Amino acid sequence: MKRLSPGSTIGILGNGQLGRMLAQAAIDLGLKTHFYAPEPNSPASDNATSETIGDYHDLTAARKFAEACDIVTYEFENVPAELAAALRECAPIHPSPVALGITQDRLHEKTFLVKAGAETTPFAQVDNQLELKQAVEKIGLPVVLKTRRLGYDGKGQNILRTKSDTEGAFESLGSVPCILEGFIDFTCEISVIVARNTYGQISCYDPAENIHRNHILSTSVVPARIDENLAQRANDIATHIVEALDYVGVAGIELFATQDGRILVNEFAPRVHNSGHWTIDACVTSQFEQHLRAICGWPLGDTRRHSDALMFNLIGEDVDAWPDLAARPNYRLHLYGKRQARPGRKMGHVTELRPLGSFPPEGAPSLPSTTPAETIEK
Amino acid sequence: MKRLSPGSTIGILGNGQLGRMLAQAAIDLGLKTHFYAPEPNSPASDNATSETIGDYHDLTAARKFAEACDIVTYEFENVPAELAAALRECAPIHPSPVALGITQDRLHEKTFLVKAGAETTPFAQVDNQLELKQAVEKIGLPVVLKTRRLGYDGKGQNILRTKSDTEGAFESLGSVPCILEGFIDFTCEISVIVARNTYGQISCYDPAENIHRNHILSTSVVPARIDENLAQRANDIATHIVEALDYVGVAGIELFATQDGRILVNEFAPRVHNSGHWTIDACVTSQFEQHLRAICGWPLGDTRRHSDALMFNLIGEDVDAWPDLAARPNYRLHLYGKRQARPGRKMGHVTELRPLGSFPPEGAPSLPSTTPAETIEK
Repeated sequence: MKRLSPGSTIGILGNGQLGRMLAQAAIDLGLKTHFYAPEPNSPASDNATSETIGDYHDLTAARKFAEACDIVTYEFENVPAELAAALRECAPIHPSPVALGITQDRLHEKTFLVKAGAETTPFAQVDNQLELKQAVEKIGLPVVLKTRRLGYDGKGQNILRTKSDTEGAFESLGSVPCILEGFIDFTCEISVIVARNTYGQISCYDPAENIHRNHILSTSVVPARIDENLAQRANDIATHIVEALDYVGVAGIELFATQDGRILVNEFAPRVHNSGHWTIDACVTSQFEQHLRAICGWPLGDTRRHSDALMFNLIGEDVDAWPDLAARPNYRLHLYGKRQARPGRKMGHVTELRPLGSFPPEGAPSLPSTTPAETIEK
Repeated sequence: MKRLSPGSTIGILGNGQLGRMLAQAAIDLGLKTHFYAPEPNSPASDNATSETIGDYHDLTAARKFAEACDIVTYEFENVPAELAAALRECAPIHPSPVALGITQDRLHEKTFLVKAGAETTPFAQVDNQLELKQAVEKIGLPVVLKTRRLGYDGKGQNILRTKSDTEGAFESLGSVPCILEGFIDFTCEISVIVARNTYGQISCYDPAENIHRNHILSTSVVPARIDENLAQRANDIATHIVEALDYVGVAGIELFATQDGRILVNEFAPRVHNSGHWTIDACVTSQFEQHLRAICGWPLGDTRRHSDALMFNLIGEDVDAWPDLAARPNYRLHLYGKRQARPGRKMGHVTELRPLGSFPPEGAPSLPSTTPAETIEK
């Protein structure tokens, strides 16, 4: 593929906050954006150059959209892979529909990761209650049962701690194809934001340490409290995965660091990732700009970090604290323009910037168990 | 004025690159933008939430626009002050049309600055050729003759070095009201980006040192090569000016530091300013976000600088070097989406980030006489 010039139009499937931040990055590079999504008045509607409202199953409308773009990408990984494949006739599309398809099915994703030489949590395919029982025996309690498709932020999954929890568990998720995963005694959860461009150039940001609450990312801290060797190994794994997949674009790879020094891959997200939002404020190049550079055939940008960073999400009514958050020094506020602050909904995020060396990678004080937003009186 | 909440719409008169960057900042704060300007397909058209194309003299269209906004501001200082005054009936407008009016006339501006206690270059009112001759005798050659209104980037001005240069000089600028200004033997040209919000809170960024070429800003370096006392005095002057004017918003104040330690005010721009673009990449809060915070009644943001910065403009065909600029580490590229790279046209800018202390304020190596863009082979 030739290098796209400034003035080109980037087609984006999905119009949520990731699209909103992609559009901000596009502006810096002189690129225009055109979004395609079913819902109007979404976060990216506020700063899109243009927007087509259409269903992901309306091939005619989607084709017309893609023909108006110089390239097409996604900000939402549950775009039907068949749609993405069909749009290839109209415009180049990155990441490839093949990569998208693999990550849309947890079983295919884990199988690919193992084949690529990465270590994962133990897992088993579960297509009925009997297979669930057999898989629990093999992996051992506690385990987590997940639908293979369409789960996010803890939706479509159940933790099974006791034998009685397994009763009816398969049915309770809708009797759809599932995957059973073992629990891991990890010391910390990290993620690597990796980019690979159309020429095969690869670059990784420093791994972030992540804290989830109610299955939703709460906080990312950079640098992670892991030693340099472990950080390098995490980046090597990420590099290997995007090479094995012939992947083009930014991906977010979630990993567990275990007590015995292993690194297991938990998830591969074929898109810019919540745990990479800190790069907007703490790096020369943000993950959003990096994704656009990668898919447009530009040289990848500088991933150097000029500051330490603590990113926390504003979930649901956390966002009501905006006046106090806006008044804090070192805080960079990012609001997503969503009208209703429903529980569990990501309404924005804040990045706290600190001089390099403020969050030492080892021996650092323990991370806050509440986000700063929660400690501010509303 | 009450504090505006996220979700509010900021009306902006003008839709050039300053508007484009204001719109990017608005997105972070959850604000929508609505632009009003005569030309479509301008830089801010790419990321505006909405846009009305209309003439600055079409009061009906402009009123309809203002009524659809929660507040109105400008990104272009030559908006007719009468239009701004008329829109006050429809929405709050900041900075005030009074401040706008003063800065639209170089004579009123200089007169105000002197009244406010600031020192300026010597100047005189010139309404005809005879007054020009008298003013030249009073101030002494060389001098610069400028139209009082509508000049920018060296347009509407002539340098007079010899007596013969003065012949016909008034006519050559169109026989319009002019101002004659004396030359100053300055050691460096600096600027202060100052903000004042609706509650009177004021904050300044570190002064930048500026280099102009052909009357157009070429390079800004932060920190400026001046000592701390001088930097503090520059910020005190800026603070005093915005207080005297009861100004609300961000302003760019250009100053000369002289060999004998004086600071003279050269110009007051009632808007975000080219010499403040470095704040996007090197500060916790950019000048664009700061302007929105100021006019919306938010607390002013943190002006702390996390990096040293060298900003250079991409003028005309400088922008053709984008592939090389995009490949350089530490470079942040900002392209304005303009199609035609006419000579003298600002097409984008680049900020080079360096760790704090890289550009020592005193005894630093001399600044480059060419911008990095000029040294890159095209």
